[in-house]
Amino acid sequence: MNKPIALGIDIGGTNTVYGFIDQKGNVLHFKEIQTNGNKPIDNLIVRIETAVNNYLIEHKEQFLIGIGVGAPNGNFFTGKIQNPPNLSWGNVDVVSYFKKRFNCSVQLTNDANAAALGEKYFGVAKNMDNFIVITLGTGLGSGIFSGGKLVYGHDGFAGEMGHISIDYNGRVCNCGNIGCLEAYVSASGIKKTIGILCEKYPQDEFLKKINSAAIDGELLDQEFDNGNPIAREIYNYTGEKLGQGLAIVATLLSPEAFIFYGGFSNAGHRILNTAKFTMDRNLINNQSETIHLMQSGLPKGKAGILGAASLIWDLNNSKA
Amino acid sequence: MNKPIALGIDIGGTNTVYGFIDQKGNVLHFKEIQTNGNKPIDNLIVRIETAVNNYLIEHKEQFLIGIGVGAPNGNFFTGKIQNPPNLSWGNVDVVSYFKKRFNCSVQLTNDANAAALGEKYFGVAKNMDNFIVITLGTGLGSGIFSGGKLVYGHDGFAGEMGHISIDYNGRVCNCGNIGCLEAYVSASGIKKTIGILCEKYPQDEFLKKINSAAIDGELLDQEFDNGNPIAREIYNYTGEKLGQGLAIVATLLSPEAFIFYGGFSNAGHRILNTAKFTMDRNLINNQSETIHLMQSGLPKGKAGILGAASLIWDLNNSKA
Repeated sequence: MNKPIALGIDIGGTNTVYGFIDQKGNVLHFKEIQTNGNKPIDNLIVRIETAVNNYLIEHKEQFLIGIGVGAPNGNFFTGKIQNPPNLSWGNVDVVSYFKKRFNCSVQLTNDANAAALGEKYFGVAKNMDNFIVITLGTGLGSGIFSGGKLVYGHDGFAGEMGHISIDYNGRVCNCGNIGCLEAYVSASGIKKTIGILCEKYPQDEFLKKINSAAIDGELLDQEFDNGNPIAREIYNYTGEKLGQGLAIVATLLSPEAFIFYGGFSNAGHRILNTAKFTMDRNLINNQSETIHLMQSGLPKGKAGILGAASLIWDLNNSKA
Repeated sequence: MNKPIALGIDIGGTNTVYGFIDQKGNVLHFKEIQTNGNKPIDNLIVRIETAVNNYLIEHKEQFLIGIGVGAPNGNFFTGKIQNPPNLSWGNVDVVSYFKKRFNCSVQLTNDANAAALGEKYFGVAKNMDNFIVITLGTGLGSGIFSGGKLVYGHDGFAGEMGHISIDYNGRVCNCGNIGCLEAYVSASGIKKTIGILCEKYPQDEFLKKINSAAIDGELLDQEFDNGNPIAREIYNYTGEKLGQGLAIVATLLSPEAFIFYGGFSNAGHRILNTAKFTMDRNLINNQSETIHLMQSGLPKGKAGILGAASLIWDLNNSKA
């Protein structure tokens, strides 16, 4: 009997993951390859095409019903990746590229929206209609579900929670605006916080150690657990700023949960306890008991492709 | 031939308006009565019941298919008005009360959501699926449409844009939280601004005149138009704060338009020009050209009942 499968592709700045996923969220096969973002996108697509064709020849009982692509700056409406960071592609019409090569439905969205779809179909948000997935990595991304549907806004650009201002007199963000949540709550935001603390405590050995190009999250977690006051200050400050952002979004959208995903979300309760406390203090309508902060329920490394494949299984989500 | 009509009821702190509305938004009959919020709600409902029965006896060609109620703190999910300001009713299950008296569908929502429904069905948002109605009066309310549906959140409390913080080091709001948009952009917010300016310019005659219990909006508009620097400072400051709030909401939801409604929205361009300038400066993704600020398209005095009646015509909006 023929079994329908979707191809989920998670395009990242360095690596791309693709995998075949059935409607129950079983990953039948997956592989990580280099994106080679310095070469034209054809280079990536041809490699994926060859692998897909080989797989389908070997698995004649399966047939491809669609391809879902998640990528930074991927726009659901236009089908284009728009000036992706760390990739030389400029504005590239990914959907058209894939459609030319594969005779099936192709959908694109950004990586945070894909993560939100993944949680809805295969993760902790299966029974939720109103929730927000926050991806914590170098930056802060978000995908918003409201009334059972992803929120795209009129142009596909909705959900940029990393760029709401929590302090119009605050830090300059990498985007050029002032006080963006991402400038505080993300790996790059924590780097800024560490830089400020280095000026405050110039002699601190732990700060000297951690003030490097790439922050060692595990070391920070460990020192926090050991009661290091600087590590506590870093995470408490980050948690407070996160809580301020969550309160704004909760007041507007009243979600059942915020779900955290991405490398830096491993800090978990070390940040989220302070965030919850700050959020609750700034809510109205006694909502503090009903809005939860949770960790992602998707398996690491496969979350991106599960989310991307959900674009194909997400039959209820029309472009209307 | 029998013609279906909806009853729209707009409950306010002082007056209540009710009216019969057909599916095209024609107001067939409407009347304003005193709410008598110091008496039990039965008092109001019995008066409406009598009037409705009399109307239906006189218009046998019409039949009532449902009752939509808009009220401050009205909750779509619970059917209750929860501790309405200026009314002695406490938590009152309005939907049950009306259902006991009328044999038809009854729906409740808050006044800002009703205004948003009204714009969608009968106003300037007919062709929009993503927009936000902002009601400017004593406070600041908002109703959010996303993907063609009202945003209620998981508990019906979504859309409280008046209580997102635009400055966590800012003013104390009447709700007790810090920096709420409403503490700057509303009649009560402008009163606070005027109070602060009175300390800054204690000799100013215009400030003395306008620093009264109820702000004279027409006088403020007039002085602004005459180039009075204090009036300009008041509206420019208010517009800047509004723009900061709009930028946050636009970054999250990417609406096609913000639509302004309510007494204090008559200031129009005097506030909105500065608001638009500030909003645009704080957006990302070059969205400034695509997000519009507009005035309501609903007739004054009837907007509330049109919006409330839309709850009945809003067949696509399920509670799922």
